[in-house]
Amino acid sequence: MPIAVDAMGGDFAPRAAVQGAFLAAAEDGVAVLLVGDRERVGAELDRIGLSRDRIEVVHAEETVAMDEAPTSVRRKRRSSLAVCAQLVRDGRAEAMVSAGNTGAAMVAAKLYMGALPGVDRPALAAVFPNRRGRTLVLDVGANVDSRPEHLRQFAVMGHFYAQEVIGTTRPRVGLLSIGEEYAKGNDVTRDAHRFLAAAGLNFIGNVEGRDVFSGGVDVVVCDGFVGNVLLKSSEAMAELVVGMVREELMRTSRTRFGGWLVRPAFANFKRRTDYTEYGAVPLLGVEGGCFIGHGRSNAKAMRNAIHSASEFGRAELSGKIGAKLTQLAAEEARLASSAGPV
Amino acid sequence: MPIAVDAMGGDFAPRAAVQGAFLAAAEDGVAVLLVGDRERVGAELDRIGLSRDRIEVVHAEETVAMDEAPTSVRRKRRSSLAVCAQLVRDGRAEAMVSAGNTGAAMVAAKLYMGALPGVDRPALAAVFPNRRGRTLVLDVGANVDSRPEHLRQFAVMGHFYAQEVIGTTRPRVGLLSIGEEYAKGNDVTRDAHRFLAAAGLNFIGNVEGRDVFSGGVDVVVCDGFVGNVLLKSSEAMAELVVGMVREELMRTSRTRFGGWLVRPAFANFKRRTDYTEYGAVPLLGVEGGCFIGHGRSNAKAMRNAIHSASEFGRAELSGKIGAKLTQLAAEEARLASSAGPV
Repeated sequence: MPIAVDAMGGDFAPRAAVQGAFLAAAEDGVAVLLVGDRERVGAELDRIGLSRDRIEVVHAEETVAMDEAPTSVRRKRRSSLAVCAQLVRDGRAEAMVSAGNTGAAMVAAKLYMGALPGVDRPALAAVFPNRRGRTLVLDVGANVDSRPEHLRQFAVMGHFYAQEVIGTTRPRVGLLSIGEEYAKGNDVTRDAHRFLAAAGLNFIGNVEGRDVFSGGVDVVVCDGFVGNVLLKSSEAMAELVVGMVREELMRTSRTRFGGWLVRPAFANFKRRTDYTEYGAVPLLGVEGGCFIGHGRSNAKAMRNAIHSASEFGRAELSGKIGAKLTQLAAEEARLASSAGPV
Repeated sequence: MPIAVDAMGGDFAPRAAVQGAFLAAAEDGVAVLLVGDRERVGAELDRIGLSRDRIEVVHAEETVAMDEAPTSVRRKRRSSLAVCAQLVRDGRAEAMVSAGNTGAAMVAAKLYMGALPGVDRPALAAVFPNRRGRTLVLDVGANVDSRPEHLRQFAVMGHFYAQEVIGTTRPRVGLLSIGEEYAKGNDVTRDAHRFLAAAGLNFIGNVEGRDVFSGGVDVVVCDGFVGNVLLKSSEAMAELVVGMVREELMRTSRTRFGGWLVRPAFANFKRRTDYTEYGAVPLLGVEGGCFIGHGRSNAKAMRNAIHSASEFGRAELSGKIGAKLTQLAAEEARLASSAGPV
């Protein structure tokens, strides 16, 4: 089934989306529905001037601007974002991809695709590099003021994403806190620890900020406020480190020459940490796939995002997450009724 | 007035503390009270075998272990940590420095030195490098579940620390959130925004995780849970980046040779980001100075921490913070009474 791509979202729309879709279709063999203004998308496709195999344009006459209030997508039912979500809902697309207004993309996905059974709050999941591989962190900004039961839902969604999409065997799930001991943390994490310990996952307890990058945990669960700060600060930190090293390299002719020699090493490093390699972050917990990219996404980032969305579709996560959460809810109901007055 | 140094705290105690104290005394001219087991501290001083000018040993027969419960310092009134705090309380030392049990150091400072007028919750303030200089972030772990009025107290403390100790003119104060608009954030930050806007500081509104490293803000205010995650994750991220670059440099003979050439650049970079340059983080909001170092602090980190503590003493922050918070409380009381029924 094809992937619906919001051609009008992102700083470089429609060019980056159209080029990314072309690459995904031509080189990865993914079928794509390019959603947006028919004229503008068509002109861009003509400009590329190559085959339109596996690409279909779906017209959407409205757009949601990057700085518009997320809820405007409720009103703009014919916006490219809304149409993408409707295509997934109607079974015409497996998943949607947008580099547009993040908040509006989340609202559209929740509104048209709906949440999975047992999911109160869908969550954004980001992949971080670590020394040995990758760490999945969720939520990175879809929710604030999450309650302990929400953190458990994030854990279940993250577990299946790591297992089925990233390919981690028995993913180790950790609760982000400020000390490893059970008693450390805030009111929410202390309760969440209890919930997670009983969730039948490979729960390894509290983890700290440093563990996101250590490789000692595969899935890190946290409130979206904390996760968003973590995501944005570590992106900026990595940029700062690279910028500072560059500055230092320029100081003497010795280090400038050395800097030229080590260029290939820097290129490899950049590839290992470049966000465009991952393309986009999934919104987990909705019926169908929804991948949201950086506003700055270029064609390569869009292509990788479309690729991730198609992998996601194949993994059939929704059924697995829904079944697990339904089972946990049933267990709880049973416990509650057996604990109650007889 | 001298600085009280906990000789028994940290992974390399008493050696690192004694050597650091010696360097601070001999090279920076700071008077030091070395607090700990008389025999062990004396043996270490004898081993160094140089002048004891400006160094006095104060005996403390107990110690608080790194993994002990922080509250044990209440019981251990003759521990090196407790004695340090008592020396500050009694006016025999300007400030205390410890690389020992962080929680216990905070308990000791609050218990013996007490909070400043208007401060409900003292906060740990960490200095981060940014492109142009330094960003102060507080709280990085002394408190969780902070309320809006606590965040305002952090802002006032951070303002004066940045102005008087770091030397920033009219420090720009930002509230850590997940979007720049006023409405973005969680329940606490939305209320805190209002409090901060009325605090008479150079408040620039909400800032995001990335801004900690951009140089666009001087003082970042947040709850200790978020700040602690930020501190620990960015330390680990910086280590990961350096480790990954090293790994890439070793791959070919070209990059290995280049790597040797660029060594001085890496050394400069490390100096710019090395935590031992800052030595320790201050616990702000207590009567007198309290600096808490990394458990791994070496002699250089201890020396720099002692130096910071002596700078802090000269800045006479306590009076300024106390006066500002008392003024804000008075304004509020006036507003409350004028808004009430007449």
